[in-house]
Amino acid sequence: MPDADMPILFTYEWVPDFPRGYVRDLRIRWLFHEMDQPYRVETVPFAPKSAEHLAMQPFGQVPAVRWRGRNWFETGAILLGLATGHDRLLPEARRAEITEWLFAAANSVEMSTQPWIFAAASLAAPQIFGPAPAPEVIERLAQRMKTRLGAMETVLTTRDWLAGDFTIADILMADVLRIAGDKGGLEGYPVLQSYVARATARPAFRKAHADQMAHWAAADAARAAVA
Amino acid sequence: MPDADMPILFTYEWVPDFPRGYVRDLRIRWLFHEMDQPYRVETVPFAPKSAEHLAMQPFGQVPAVRWRGRNWFETGAILLGLATGHDRLLPEARRAEITEWLFAAANSVEMSTQPWIFAAASLAAPQIFGPAPAPEVIERLAQRMKTRLGAMETVLTTRDWLAGDFTIADILMADVLRIAGDKGGLEGYPVLQSYVARATARPAFRKAHADQMAHWAAADAARAAVA
Repeated sequence: MPDADMPILFTYEWVPDFPRGYVRDLRIRWLFHEMDQPYRVETVPFAPKSAEHLAMQPFGQVPAVRWRGRNWFETGAILLGLATGHDRLLPEARRAEITEWLFAAANSVEMSTQPWIFAAASLAAPQIFGPAPAPEVIERLAQRMKTRLGAMETVLTTRDWLAGDFTIADILMADVLRIAGDKGGLEGYPVLQSYVARATARPAFRKAHADQMAHWAAADAARAAVA
Repeated sequence: MPDADMPILFTYEWVPDFPRGYVRDLRIRWLFHEMDQPYRVETVPFAPKSAEHLAMQPFGQVPAVRWRGRNWFETGAILLGLATGHDRLLPEARRAEITEWLFAAANSVEMSTQPWIFAAASLAAPQIFGPAPAPEVIERLAQRMKTRLGAMETVLTTRDWLAGDFTIADILMADVLRIAGDKGGLEGYPVLQSYVARATARPAFRKAHADQMAHWAAADAARAAVA
């Protein structure tokens, strides 16, 4: 495949240790490995945000993708756009169902896990994440999260994947749950733990994770060479 | 149009005063009015959740829609699914762009406004929303929200609507911003205030809002008649 046809994945040039393995570019690396689609990486500064970055991604986040003459942003939209036409990852007959689960992951589930994760992170490192909420506030956030996790536990009790076989819906949902689980959020949810284990055992996830970690290692080495 | 072809919008049978005008069924009522599509309403209990409700909407939320033999859930997916084929609200040439903004509204923006709204609500009514976070925690939530609102302020400085003319992306984004704005979250964001004013001045929004408020008034009357 000529280089010009290869998708470009934009991620940060460097990040501190704590988000490594969790930067959202991983979800798109995962997609590309599931598709057997080679990709190359270009970088944007973590901070301050560059004008080029903000022109591609209005919130100054990653991932962003450039492919076939178009810039893409928002993971859910990138997954839907890039997997269109892929019979296994986004079968047209299940597009509606897959879209529902993508929004469920991005809104109903992540909107419940992220505040709890931020609070847990503040407890551990207030100098980075800001002052920690009081225990009763964190408990309230945990309860909101558990309502949504309990619903997903029920859904996944009767199926291995959200919409038939493994699809892009599982890339987003499993990664949202993985991040919560790595902070201890999935205790008491054995079905969700199994789902995340099943998803992250896939070769494409393992390659995506290894790619991201290699990227940070190379970034460290480049910084050390300059210093 | 025969009744059997009419979409059914599921919302709560009754809710307390505070969420009235904000229950998410409004976004789908808004879509139907933009489409000139008649719809009818069926209800599910607010609490406890019914089995029928959970079978349609795994998180026990609203809206859910039944149309053309399919149940739909998650507002973003409902908007994308039901507007498909509608040249004005979801022009195919702009589907990717519209999908990006739908996910931006559902994830990047609402994930930043909702924690601040919950915190502000807790300050006002801890008996309903749980203990209020400390001022410095609320300030941190406000800062996270402002990062995203500032980005949207920049985007909307140069355009009236997110993707050309008014589309389903504006239904979701404007309503997410409206809810934050009604809690005082848009102070200092004149462009976003104008955007919300422009969106909510549309006849379809006004009809949707009136429909929802009439629904709660009827629910109150029905309860009074029984009592």
